[in-house]
Amino acid sequence: MEGRVPEPTFTLEGWHLLHDFRHLDFPAWLSAPKEEREAAWRDLQALLAEWAQVQAEGRGSFGVYQVITHKADLLFLNLRESLDALLQAEERLNKSLIAPYLSPAYGFYSVVELGSQTGPLDPEAPYIKPRLTPQVPKGGYVCFYPMNKRRQGQDNWYLLPAKERGELMKAHGETGRKYQGKVLQVISGAQGLDDWEWGVDLFSEDPIQFKKIVYEMRFDEVSARFGEFGPFYVGKYLTVEALARFLEVV
Amino acid sequence: MEGRVPEPTFTLEGWHLLHDFRHLDFPAWLSAPKEEREAAWRDLQALLAEWAQVQAEGRGSFGVYQVITHKADLLFLNLRESLDALLQAEERLNKSLIAPYLSPAYGFYSVVELGSQTGPLDPEAPYIKPRLTPQVPKGGYVCFYPMNKRRQGQDNWYLLPAKERGELMKAHGETGRKYQGKVLQVISGAQGLDDWEWGVDLFSEDPIQFKKIVYEMRFDEVSARFGEFGPFYVGKYLTVEALARFLEVV
Amino acid sequence: MEGRVPEPTFTLEGWHLLHDFRHLDFPAWLSAPKEEREAAWRDLQALLAEWAQVQAEGRGSFGVYQVITHKADLLFLNLRESLDALLQAEERLNKSLIAPYLSPAYGFYSVVELGSQTGPLDPEAPYIKPRLTPQVPKGGYVCFYPMNKRRQGQDNWYLLPAKERGELMKAHGETGRKYQGKVLQVISGAQGLDDWEWGVDLFSEDPIQFKKIVYEMRFDEVSARFGEFGPFYVGKYLTVEALARFLEVV
Amino acid sequence: MEGRVPEPTFTLEGWHLLHDFRHLDFPAWLSAPKEEREAAWRDLQALLAEWAQVQAEGRGSFGVYQVITHKADLLFLNLRESLDALLQAEERLNKSLIAPYLSPAYGFYSVVELGSQTGPLDPEAPYIKPRLTPQVPKGGYVCFYPMNKRRQGQDNWYLLPAKERGELMKAHGETGRKYQGKVLQVISGAQGLDDWEWGVDLFSEDPIQFKKIVYEMRFDEVSARFGEFGPFYVGKYLTVEALARFLEVV
Amino acid sequence: MEGRVPEPTFTLEGWHLLHDFRHLDFPAWLSAPKEEREAAWRDLQALLAEWAQVQAEGRGSFGVYQVITHKADLLFLNLRESLDALLQAEERLNKSLIAPYLSPAYGFYSVVELGSQTGPLDPEAPYIKPRLTPQVPKGGYVCFYPMNKRRQGQDNWYLLPAKERGELMKAHGETGRKYQGKVLQVISGAQGLDDWEWGVDLFSEDPIQFKKIVYEMRFDEVSARFGEFGPFYVGKYLTVEALARFLEVV
Repeated sequence: MEGRVPEPTFTLEGWHLLHDFRHLDFPAWLSAPKEEREAAWRDLQALLAEWAQVQAEGRGSFGVYQVITHKADLLFLNLRESLDALLQAEERLNKSLIAPYLSPAYGFYSVVELGSQTGPLDPEAPYIKPRLTPQVPKGGYVCFYPMNKRRQGQDNWYLLPAKERGELMKAHGETGRKYQGKVLQVISGAQGLDDWEWGVDLFSEDPIQFKKIVYEMRFDEVSARFGEFGPFYVGKYLTVEALARFLEVV
Repeated sequence: MEGRVPEPTFTLEGWHLLHDFRHLDFPAWLSAPKEEREAAWRDLQALLAEWAQVQAEGRGSFGVYQVITHKADLLFLNLRESLDALLQAEERLNKSLIAPYLSPAYGFYSVVELGSQTGPLDPEAPYIKPRLTPQVPKGGYVCFYPMNKRRQGQDNWYLLPAKERGELMKAHGETGRKYQGKVLQVISGAQGLDDWEWGVDLFSEDPIQFKKIVYEMRFDEVSARFGEFGPFYVGKYLTVEALARFLEVV
Repeated sequence: MEGRVPEPTFTLEGWHLLHDFRHLDFPAWLSAPKEEREAAWRDLQALLAEWAQVQAEGRGSFGVYQVITHKADLLFLNLRESLDALLQAEERLNKSLIAPYLSPAYGFYSVVELGSQTGPLDPEAPYIKPRLTPQVPKGGYVCFYPMNKRRQGQDNWYLLPAKERGELMKAHGETGRKYQGKVLQVISGAQGLDDWEWGVDLFSEDPIQFKKIVYEMRFDEVSARFGEFGPFYVGKYLTVEALARFLEVV
Repeated sequence: MEGRVPEPTFTLEGWHLLHDFRHLDFPAWLSAPKEEREAAWRDLQALLAEWAQVQAEGRGSFGVYQVITHKADLLFLNLRESLDALLQAEERLNKSLIAPYLSPAYGFYSVVELGSQTGPLDPEAPYIKPRLTPQVPKGGYVCFYPMNKRRQGQDNWYLLPAKERGELMKAHGETGRKYQGKVLQVISGAQGLDDWEWGVDLFSEDPIQFKKIVYEMRFDEVSARFGEFGPFYVGKYLTVEALARFLEVV
Repeated sequence: MEGRVPEPTFTLEGWHLLHDFRHLDFPAWLSAPKEEREAAWRDLQALLAEWAQVQAEGRGSFGVYQVITHKADLLFLNLRESLDALLQAEERLNKSLIAPYLSPAYGFYSVVELGSQTGPLDPEAPYIKPRLTPQVPKGGYVCFYPMNKRRQGQDNWYLLPAKERGELMKAHGETGRKYQGKVLQVISGAQGLDDWEWGVDLFSEDPIQFKKIVYEMRFDEVSARFGEFGPFYVGKYLTVEALARFLEVV
């Protein structure tokens, strides 16, 4: 490694993301007094209206999802301009009237990231800003998982020359492009922010596409040799009406 | 790896599966007021009747199992045509009257998968559809476990040429065929859907066969070199009558 | 691995085993009303009498142990002719009157196994049957631990030729024989049944022998290179009288 | 390794550090009787005043942070001259009137450390003492994570010659210097004290800098080959006023 | 490995050790009725008097410690002549009147061990017996951690020739000797008894010495290549008076 010069990835950072997965205590919630549930629902609606307002003003985006399996019941996904705004959103939910029925299941803090292995990105390029401030689709399904790049023996991502990293990522991008129109990907970096190096969000109208793209990508050398994957969470987008039905408050 | 072209597995997808393992709070359940238990049992019977109806209409299949060891007490296994239908089944159970006595033990979301390493499968072939929409046997025992294919140093499944993968899977299939008539296997893919890459269900009239087949298969190169196995759950099929006895509601 | 033919171990299976480790909620138990504790104790005595009856009829064996450290307080060890009989034993304990004070600590389901690397065992040989249906000693101490055989790089047990496996196991057996009369070993297989491939029970009048035999065996190549060990549980056999004293019901 | 002479790192030790992460039970706290909350707040203010006094007297430093994600809600960070003083601070918080609403989330005990690979540091050098007794910045954000140096096959930090370790650390230091004025680093050693070998605290006015520095440093050979990282916690500094607002006691 | 003859370590065994770490439920304890707390304290004093009596009669030793971080609040450390005596001590604490306020945090069962790689130790040598029956110092601090010797690829302790193991341990002993008078080490073996192969207790008047010795020893080849370390617990010795103050019963 004599004389090796580190070649870090060039990145641009966008919105801050909080994935806030919760369990719902169904029996306690369903047996709570009617007035209490109604008050909690009004409070939750107010909170969602605040978040919708933030979104309307271009200061963030959000989505609520019904999550499959015991790992969580609900996902509150928020994007904001700053960590302060995310802390506020998390605190607001923790202090809401439905909080006694929601317990933490999992969470992840990261920042939307565009990366380049071979040279700085132009922050003024027209396609950049929309990708740094992505909108949560208002329907369909989400698949979230955190991941690392492996640093093990011969398979050490961070010791590869930038050129080789660039080629591997390019091939990976080509696999991704096959799913254009079917799967929207949002990559966020969590180095220094959470326990995995990245978070990945996939959005699609068809959850089978999550299986297809993740499986196909695993044959790309960059995933096969270097990808280390955390837990996977899959959920279905809930409109306010669907959330009301889920909570049986209509 | 110069010029390597990824050779992903060809797959067909069938029904969506939810393995929903639960603990039963025996002391609380057994000491609940008689009317409450009777109401909960009527509600559970109604739920099972709905699931039986889905099954009768060819829109899915299901089974309930008594699970050995502290890892779980009951398994509610459901197959459906879509994630939406599974979410509904899970939500229905969470909102049922027995839910206060059932806590989550483990769960797994996957999709029935037929795979081929060397070329696309013909979805119209007559043997395909039944294998993509398998029926849960109405008796016997189940063994469920999730698994990955290893990606480590020289033992990296996803970097093998498709031809080599095909040969390894073929030899593995031959071991499986020795158990024909004794063990029914259902393989489901969970890439992008859950924390392991596959779920495996074995169904048999004799739980010793689970031990025999899993042990023998471990000597196949594909398992020995590439198999990484998660937790194993073993359960006994419960008819409605057996479930009633288990819950002491008869 | 060209042309490699898998050489699975030959096995005979005997009784089914359930290790059922429990925590006792001492404060709740000790402060329960006297009548409740007496009723619970009568119920537990009845349960133990049923198990003793099974044992007397040659349909199984059992033992109750006081376990050291926070990992568990009690071990209910049961051997039976079938999984059904084990499910029944587990259910009976879960529904007993002492169940509200017992919470699950750990459990393991396996089947007594005799294995041979080099050729089938003769199930009719006179020494076979007693070893497949071992009796729990009525005194002394137990050491239980689950284990795997390693499958890692050059240290892959399942890729070794049967002849080499046979030699390694033979050398291991010789270490074991040094402890004859001091330590009784019962090996059970859990492939396809639980999260580790085997369970090992050591029984001895002197717990120091557990340390001696496990330490000495670790220098055998088969353990040094291929052994992966799970948690270790050590307990002292409780007669009904000793259990009564432990529960303070005398 | 014939004739190898170990070349341990030379270190100087400074203040003892306790990272005490807590969950706040929001629903219980917010619904506690007003007088109880006021009393708890007065008690917490008294505790913080004691800690401020310690700080004013140069016997330590402290900070309170609001932490993002479910991993914790609050961090109480304390530096003191001795373990005794830290035990006292921890005990004081555990006995405070707000303790019933705070449950442990994570914790770490370490000692501020200056290290040199190639020769002893001069404890009398003027720049040493301030670095051994660092002040917690009164604002901004904190990022805390524990880490190890890898000891695996060819990548074994503790078997490297001191000279090579020195060169790797020097290159790493150069990356760190790029962030001078943007990120303050405090390194503490936890060998023999906690489950990881070091704790790292980064302080900054901008949390994006945590992502930038950690990501860039990962390309340094010392991190790429030898760094093993534990969980990351990120929080925002709370003044007494901000803490009062967070607790809704104003 | 053709013709390899295993060369196990020669060991002598002494007292049995139980490390019993507990959480104290501060809020519940501090708000318990005065009479209940006084009765619990009298009971705990009686228990400690029993243990002191055992110690006075040369049948064991003990210490109580206040532990730093959330990992535990108290450590009850006991040495006895037999497992039975340890089971009794554990049971006595579990049945004591303070037990409702103490919940298990961690525990470890092991046996004091003297080992030799190259030949049997003489149990009659005068320096042996005191080292097999060590006294807990009546003051200062304790550092406890469990550990394994690695068995991985080229770094497999149990496949090393005894002579090489002996040399590595000798060098390690020399590092230890530098701390003579500053740190007292007690090594206990847990093969066959608990989840790690050894337990290590360090006793010192200055907790910084724990950091110094563990850090320095990590550069010894035996630790660098073969040491795998579990969690570290650090505590301060509590006299009966200090324990009374900690429990606020004076």
